Amino acid sequence: MSKVKKKVTPGRERMEKIVSLCKRRGFIFQSSEIYGGLNSCYDYGPMGVLLKNNVKNSWWKSNVQERDDVVGLDSSILMHPQVWVASGHVESFTDPMVDCKECKLRFRADHVEGDKCPECGGELTDARLFNLMFKTFMGAVEDTSSVVHLRPETAQGIFVNFKNVQTVSRKKLPFGIAQIGKAFRNEITPGKFTFRTREFEMMELEYFTYPEQSEECHQKWLETRMKWYADLGIKKEKLRLRRHEDDELAHYALSCYDVEYEFPWGWSELEGIANRTDYDLKAHEKDSGKDMKFFDEERKEHIAPFVIEPSAGVDRSALAFLVDAYDEDETPTAKGGIDVRTVLRFSNKLAPIKAAVLPLSKKEPLPEIAEKIYKDLRKDFYTDYDIKGSIGKRYRRQDEVGTPFCITVDFDTIEDNAVTVRFRDTLVQERIPIEELKGKLKNLLEL
Amino acid sequence: MSKVKKKVTPGRERMEKIVSLCKRRGFIFQSSEIYGGLNSCYDYGPMGVLLKNNVKNSWWKSNVQERDDVVGLDSSILMHPQVWVASGHVESFTDPMVDCKECKLRFRADHVEGDKCPECGGELTDARLFNLMFKTFMGAVEDTSSVVHLRPETAQGIFVNFKNVQTVSRKKLPFGIAQIGKAFRNEITPGKFTFRTREFEMMELEYFTYPEQSEECHQKWLETRMKWYADLGIKKEKLRLRRHEDDELAHYALSCYDVEYEFPWGWSELEGIANRTDYDLKAHEKDSGKDMKFFDEERKEHIAPFVIEPSAGVDRSALAFLVDAYDEDETPTAKGGIDVRTVLRFSNKLAPIKAAVLPLSKKEPLPEIAEKIYKDLRKDFYTDYDIKGSIGKRYRRQDEVGTPFCITVDFDTIEDNAVTVRFRDTLVQERIPIEELKGKLKNLLEL
Repeated sequence: MSKVKKKVTPGRERMEKIVSLCKRRGFIFQSSEIYGGLNSCYDYGPMGVLLKNNVKNSWWKSNVQERDDVVGLDSSILMHPQVWVASGHVESFTDPMVDCKECKLRFRADHVEGDKCPECGGELTDARLFNLMFKTFMGAVEDTSSVVHLRPETAQGIFVNFKNVQTVSRKKLPFGIAQIGKAFRNEITPGKFTFRTREFEMMELEYFTYPEQSEECHQKWLETRMKWYADLGIKKEKLRLRRHEDDELAHYALSCYDVEYEFPWGWSELEGIANRTDYDLKAHEKDSGKDMKFFDEERKEHIAPFVIEPSAGVDRSALAFLVDAYDEDETPTAKGGIDVRTVLRFSNKLAPIKAAVLPLSKKEPLPEIAEKIYKDLRKDFYTDYDIKGSIGKRYRRQDEVGTPFCITVDFDTIEDNAVTVRFRDTLVQERIPIEELKGKLKNLLEL
Repeated sequence: MSKVKKKVTPGRERMEKIVSLCKRRGFIFQSSEIYGGLNSCYDYGPMGVLLKNNVKNSWWKSNVQERDDVVGLDSSILMHPQVWVASGHVESFTDPMVDCKECKLRFRADHVEGDKCPECGGELTDARLFNLMFKTFMGAVEDTSSVVHLRPETAQGIFVNFKNVQTVSRKKLPFGIAQIGKAFRNEITPGKFTFRTREFEMMELEYFTYPEQSEECHQKWLETRMKWYADLGIKKEKLRLRRHEDDELAHYALSCYDVEYEFPWGWSELEGIANRTDYDLKAHEKDSGKDMKFFDEERKEHIAPFVIEPSAGVDRSALAFLVDAYDEDETPTAKGGIDVRTVLRFSNKLAPIKAAVLPLSKKEPLPEIAEKIYKDLRKDFYTDYDIKGSIGKRYRRQDEVGTPFCITVDFDTIEDNAVTVRFRDTLVQERIPIEELKGKLKNLLEL
């Protein structure tokens, strides 16, 4: 590590550089950019989609595959309208808004001062509640009877399926149901790149437990979730747990903690971990008339379980991992000078591309050998192949997308059947026989 | 295989049995069932979500990870309204509808005879075109300026990002962009379980090529895609390729083939593979004023690429794999009788659960040994653990979700440190030492 010297950039400049890198290297583009973009919607490019998939797969593996008390679900985005009445979203998922009587523009009530329109000076209406759910119409006729909402959270899909899932999975308390999927909120003030968007993806887990054990269970989930971020390499000093004050608690929550990350603009929520009590299951039981209790065979008792909900944003987590991975350092060049390099120090699990194969020259048999290695590695993990430009430029390109291992095929390879593996973070170079390469990399990648 | 005798059920009965199995074993539930369901929306249960993930991961791996000419993308569901004007969807993605002037009900024009309402006998309007895109409103004001659509296909997200993706990935013709994601169509007549739904998931690939090579390229993709289904174990005689007649071609297509599967109700489309020509890129170039051509450095020429589009339905494919895997056979019981068993003969790649560990008795140390094996296997692939009920019942449960390997821990295990592995399809049982178990299973699962 002695070769590497750190260089710090202030918050705003740092964020601008990250946004620029995201576009330049194909992590994140503005949606519909050729038409001027669509406010607060983003598209994940070739690198971004791999990063996001790695985040989701890692969450799913540790929360579903590796646990015997959690099963998965994938419920639809469009749900019966009554779901959102029962859950309280139709009534309470609102922001207060005022309209200008003259120019008809609408503003958030807490964003205007006085009772005159900030645009034209006209008189404003009293504040009215504006629901944050996107609505659409299902079927051929557009009237109130056909209105359905795009779900603002995936959680309700889990609650309404509670009995079905419990029955087929034959799980007993405590157990959880996990789901990854898109949700939509018509935010009046989205912003901060992909941090707050109107369309976003969530990783939600509803963990059903005995009411009297819910607080202990809550504490365990706080630990489990913090460990997940740490295991994926996020800097410990940039991560914290913040308890909600009583006045910021959602109507359904007994207590709630936010997992926060220190972004360049300050501490912001990645995940909420709430004790939702029996609020949701009871609300659906009341509205649907269907039994939503768990029958405990040992206690011979019908129980309304309490729910611990770790609810994380996929886009936010991916952005936090990106921001956290972003680094600049100074490296010595071959000619004895100094290069500033940009590098994404992703953990091996999150890196979109695990290895890049780089023939030192376009002269055969180097490309032939390199391609053979590339095609073999690619069967097991994402591997890139790059023959264009100087080796230094090619290293920089891989550093900028966070590839942990660069494999150089050079003229010695013809003699010794070995390649040079360069490690992204330490810049250490190691000569490895081709026949040992895949095994060694798989070991390092924990595959 | 001599132990197994086939039993055939007719089409409708077969489909009913499959739907019933899907609910009973947690593959697919009606969405919002406790509220009476939401027409044509479905939720994937614990087994269904794993099956669907396996289908998607398999498509992604073979089309993105293992190819050097395809990169991935994940574009947003909400896009700029102009995208759907340019693509022709606002104009052409319609069904003709008539309204009753009396009772105001709406019908598909080709579903009513004469000009009188089938409900009340009132007079009908002339047929008008009804757009199949779901619309919603973005931002605080609901007026025409805030209307956005839920995408009816993921393809346009690829086209509008063509230049961005080509630039960052530095790909040359021919190359492809792949995407998996949700799309929405306000179908007037959805139906056939998860086959035609209003909310669905697509796996789409736009492969950009030289215009003069597009037909050859089209043929290659037909082969590639047919092979994908076959490799995942679908019966060859149930799969066919059907060329579109000229009068069923979409407005943008030069030619198109459907990959069809013979469902219990007949041959139906799983995937369309079209030559979309340069229609979309040119349309977006015209509407956005942005260059959408590929600059060919060797030819020194700006080229408007032709596009071959293999566009597959995730839900349809998953349903086809389910239907294809469904089987009933007769197996001899221990007592010399005959049992009819239901079994899902999934390929190993698609099976939701790869192995189940079943201690023969609840008496220690059997559960302890079994749990240890279970926890170890689970790190590498989805494994179930079941101690409840007779061993015969437990086998049936696993057969019904298609688990290829059942591992029995019995009293001999204490002596010989080996377990019995039962193979789902052949019912062959093999004694395998515990220390060789994981390696052997991983080999069989091609992991």
